[in-house]
Amino acid sequence: MTNTNAYADLMAHQRQTEALGLVMERLGWDQETMMPRAASQQRGEEMAALESVLHARKTDPRIADWLDQATAQDQAAEAQLRHIRRSFLRNTKVPADLAEALARLTSTAQGIWAAARAADDVAAFLPTLKEVIALRRQEAQCLAQGGDPYDALIEDYEPGATGDTIKAMFDAMRPRLVALRARVLAAPHQPKPISGHFAQDAQLRFSRDLAATFGYDFSRGRIDLAVHPFSSGTWQDSRITTRVVESDPFNCFYSTIHEVGHSSYELAIDPDYALTPIGHGCSMGVHESQSRIYENQMGRSSAFTGWMFGEMRQRFGDFGIASAAEFAATINRVQPGFIRTEADEIHYNLHIMMRFDLERALMRGDLGVDDLEAAWNDRFLSDFGVAVDRPSHGMLQDVHWSCGLFGYFPTYTLGNVYAGCLWKALRSDLPAIDDALAQGNTAPATEWLREKLQRHGGLYDPRETIRQACGFEPSEGPLLEYLEHKFTGLYAL
Amino acid sequence: MTNTNAYADLMAHQRQTEALGLVMERLGWDQETMMPRAASQQRGEEMAALESVLHARKTDPRIADWLDQATAQDQAAEAQLRHIRRSFLRNTKVPADLAEALARLTSTAQGIWAAARAADDVAAFLPTLKEVIALRRQEAQCLAQGGDPYDALIEDYEPGATGDTIKAMFDAMRPRLVALRARVLAAPHQPKPISGHFAQDAQLRFSRDLAATFGYDFSRGRIDLAVHPFSSGTWQDSRITTRVVESDPFNCFYSTIHEVGHSSYELAIDPDYALTPIGHGCSMGVHESQSRIYENQMGRSSAFTGWMFGEMRQRFGDFGIASAAEFAATINRVQPGFIRTEADEIHYNLHIMMRFDLERALMRGDLGVDDLEAAWNDRFLSDFGVAVDRPSHGMLQDVHWSCGLFGYFPTYTLGNVYAGCLWKALRSDLPAIDDALAQGNTAPATEWLREKLQRHGGLYDPRETIRQACGFEPSEGPLLEYLEHKFTGLYAL
Repeated sequence: MTNTNAYADLMAHQRQTEALGLVMERLGWDQETMMPRAASQQRGEEMAALESVLHARKTDPRIADWLDQATAQDQAAEAQLRHIRRSFLRNTKVPADLAEALARLTSTAQGIWAAARAADDVAAFLPTLKEVIALRRQEAQCLAQGGDPYDALIEDYEPGATGDTIKAMFDAMRPRLVALRARVLAAPHQPKPISGHFAQDAQLRFSRDLAATFGYDFSRGRIDLAVHPFSSGTWQDSRITTRVVESDPFNCFYSTIHEVGHSSYELAIDPDYALTPIGHGCSMGVHESQSRIYENQMGRSSAFTGWMFGEMRQRFGDFGIASAAEFAATINRVQPGFIRTEADEIHYNLHIMMRFDLERALMRGDLGVDDLEAAWNDRFLSDFGVAVDRPSHGMLQDVHWSCGLFGYFPTYTLGNVYAGCLWKALRSDLPAIDDALAQGNTAPATEWLREKLQRHGGLYDPRETIRQACGFEPSEGPLLEYLEHKFTGLYAL
Repeated sequence: MTNTNAYADLMAHQRQTEALGLVMERLGWDQETMMPRAASQQRGEEMAALESVLHARKTDPRIADWLDQATAQDQAAEAQLRHIRRSFLRNTKVPADLAEALARLTSTAQGIWAAARAADDVAAFLPTLKEVIALRRQEAQCLAQGGDPYDALIEDYEPGATGDTIKAMFDAMRPRLVALRARVLAAPHQPKPISGHFAQDAQLRFSRDLAATFGYDFSRGRIDLAVHPFSSGTWQDSRITTRVVESDPFNCFYSTIHEVGHSSYELAIDPDYALTPIGHGCSMGVHESQSRIYENQMGRSSAFTGWMFGEMRQRFGDFGIASAAEFAATINRVQPGFIRTEADEIHYNLHIMMRFDLERALMRGDLGVDDLEAAWNDRFLSDFGVAVDRPSHGMLQDVHWSCGLFGYFPTYTLGNVYAGCLWKALRSDLPAIDDALAQGNTAPATEWLREKLQRHGGLYDPRETIRQACGFEPSEGPLLEYLEHKFTGLYAL
């Protein structure tokens, strides 16, 4: 085996693994959008069988030999080997039967969570959550090999980040967010919420148009309804879902824009990287930076909402908001609500910090599952000043834990932080960007992101990806400055 | 390894293979219904990767050892071993490079066929068809091991059937069909075709209601639009597609009922057989007997069309047909058209007999590909009394040969024959079935089929499946009697 052959053989093996991984994503999408309701046991078996094939391929002992022999001829090949090595080491640490048990459990756990949330019945979910946590802790211990199990889980989503680095960042953000929140809530003039009835069909039509406005490529994607908005897939097939609440059209519109950010990132990656490890967004945090900058820095800017106000008046008639300024204030209304996904840009990060502390404690064994509801409710009261009125507004609100996604939540705020950095750099490169957004033209911004960041996929590690795009070291500073500037203006503080 | 362990290990291996096979079916469904239009290269890579996993699993050398050691404890286990042995021998007789070459060729050949059909250009398809036939003959020779190559191909779709047994059956049917056809076409009163405009939405609504009327379980299935109607999947997830022609609502309604027959069969199989070789319909012929008995013996009976007439009047208003009797005659109108899939119950079998003779001659080398078009057109003129006006109405009309499906066509008429037998037995057990159908109540009939046939899946071989359900040896007699009785009545002969 020559070194060149080793690299080629490794990449050929990887190519099939990547293709099978995309099949798994497609099954997941189908489960949430199209699958008949009584098919969940079958889907569990299908996913478990595919997971076992994937696990065998990812832990194939030949990979170790190929990695020993292979040499990289260029920067992309170096990145490929880095990703494969990281993933191989990660996967060989977890026994096949544990990986399979986790896949089967989490596929049924989601249904149990959804039923429990619908019935506001914590007790119906706790036994399942206990099992999920037990298996994920087992997995985390295999991965950590004596280190911190929670750090080992974070590494899956955000290579290079740890619980401690995230905690340090959160500690730096928290006082400024809390101070800003206090000033905003004390402001004399509070914007009114949206009210009225916005028919589902009309919402979906506008959300498709918004997707097109943000450059979503419908020849390689589609939009469907699902309980939880998400995006899935890459290369030639990256689909998104959205949801509709007829009393709150912004739920649908901003879910759509958010997922368009994720999907557009995947669709913008250099097609030469298709079916390789670098042919994906490089981490959850960087991914979230794209969805957030589409949704917030662009989509909730006064420039863009000005255009959107005109569009909505045309489509929905008079909906009780008289001016573009009032519309921007309504869209960006700050309120200590129960639900993370509906939170404003200030409270959102406080939601994440709370989940981060709780799940870190769960994984470390410092918090028992039976005590989770009380811990959640106490923390929410102290952070948000409001008592949780029902579990679906509290610990049952998010799908993540039922899927075993521990270590994932902090990447949302990391994404906000990265989006803050990117927005600072983008505005410096494109000083007239507000004029374009005010015309409903996102192209200069989305092209800047494509060129500076999206096309590279996983070529660089996460922080390096942001650093390369921005030209400076990423930190929480730009996000905090952006938020302080934005809300000081909106609330006339 | 004990005998019991060998059986358990074999079935565990098989279970995962079956689950992955269902994933492949789901990808095929997605491709035809949901997939974004620019994603076909990616889907090809995904399916090729999964196919290569499936092929490796199906030819795993451990299967030979397990089969040597395993003993069956009951009738179901005997059937499992019979299926696995048949499939393993089949797959190991074909060299891997030939199987791969065939898979690659037929996946591109379909596109070439579709383009040639759209352009009515036989010459554009012939080189590809030659390659497909050459490779399939090579494969058939590997499978036949000295026997008849065409028989070896039939065995894939209808275990136990041969070219000679099918020819004998077709020879017995032909004179009576031709005589019936002549009498019908010479009848003084010919029914008129349907005319008018039937909106897509209303057609789809009624086709969903028809599916429910035939007992389709929407909690384990769904209906979507596709270019070609098909059903896919089993156990907890068997979906169907239909199509809409706004000038001909029967195209949609009877495609739907046909596919509901296929899907309901799969959904009725004993769930204990799920993810095993007997957890599928037992052959193409038996499968087609279910789709046909739903579509024709039930769906096109005067009793059922009487109910349907009232429903259609309510949904579509006056559509130019004045009575239930006239409606039944229109639905069952006999006409020597070019297209097999649109043929009436008499001509349909003549279409099949013609394809059977032609493809058998092709496989035996008695007919050259260059002479196929002339042979088709001569035969069509002599059988149907009409000259083929263009290749898309002639030898380019069916997808089958481009996919390498030689030996498949005769199972359609075999299905009609089996449906004739089942209908005779069913009517004898349920003498009041017409009264139920006249109320739009198919339950007594579908429950009879479920109990007598569908639940058994692949427990018995095909002819035995029909024999067990009917209580008599299957033959073409009952179908011919049914057709003669039905059309003599409809045409007042």
